[in-house]
Amino acid sequence: MSDGFTLRPIGVLHTPWATIEACPRNGRQPDPPPACIARVFPEFLDGLRDIEGFSHLILLYWLHQAKPPRLLFTPPFDDREHGLFTTRAPQRPNPIGLSVVAFDGMDGPDRLKLRYLDCIDGTPLLDIKPYLPSTDAEPDATMGWLAPHRTPRPRA
Amino acid sequence: MSDGFTLRPIGVLHTPWATIEACPRNGRQPDPPPACIARVFPEFLDGLRDIEGFSHLILLYWLHQAKPPRLLFTPPFDDREHGLFTTRAPQRPNPIGLSVVAFDGMDGPDRLKLRYLDCIDGTPLLDIKPYLPSTDAEPDATMGWLAPHRTPRPRA
Repeated sequence: MSDGFTLRPIGVLHTPWATIEACPRNGRQPDPPPACIARVFPEFLDGLRDIEGFSHLILLYWLHQAKPPRLLFTPPFDDREHGLFTTRAPQRPNPIGLSVVAFDGMDGPDRLKLRYLDCIDGTPLLDIKPYLPSTDAEPDATMGWLAPHRTPRPRA
Repeated sequence: MSDGFTLRPIGVLHTPWATIEACPRNGRQPDPPPACIARVFPEFLDGLRDIEGFSHLILLYWLHQAKPPRLLFTPPFDDREHGLFTTRAPQRPNPIGLSVVAFDGMDGPDRLKLRYLDCIDGTPLLDIKPYLPSTDAEPDATMGWLAPHRTPRPRA
């Protein structure tokens, strides 16, 4: 059994953005994407064994500066309200952020080099999962009302 | 500011699997994949507005029956230990499960019809995010030591 619905950070994310206002709309928007770092706390380092060879990872992190949840939300790039669960906005009932990031190898035993993060510097890291194209890649997925706002993919 | 690292369920997942032992290795393994349901609690229903038109969603859920975390783990389909963060195993420091699911429309105002879930019936739902191929699809990602264990994609 787990010990309830309580989270603990396993590390911290380092990005170029000091404030929410400075963050990009998503991690694919900056071109070129800046190098970011995930630092994993010492007690969790064993969990990184064999991470070499994964080109992409899924990071979950705690949006510690998110505003209180709003179930209807008008994003800055649109002019009407949409359901929160159709957006990636931070003000969620459970403010967990998710990014699919490119993994560029280790920088020492506890620092992962990453691209495509979009959160503020100092964001608590909750989980690292391997990105598996066999279960996670849906390149032809449709995006509903967000389709006209699609972020162009930067060069690889 | 958020109110700390505490989560609350926004709904519950209904699947055909009553025990962890009965669950598939991942949601793409059953062929054909069974129909599953995410029921969203009444106080969060406004957050679903405009969800039509998204073919895929990302669900986060609380792995309430996960065993205590193990940083090194030998999966049932392999013969040696690997770092937990290179697996999708449930026994994580923060036992949050993630599935990319196909969204097959609503069944009433509070029930989402889904395919590709892999968790047990009654799993608490934490978040629904829209799947955005522009940021989430990496069909050419490499899978490191997991590559020989890749799950073939079922027919669409």
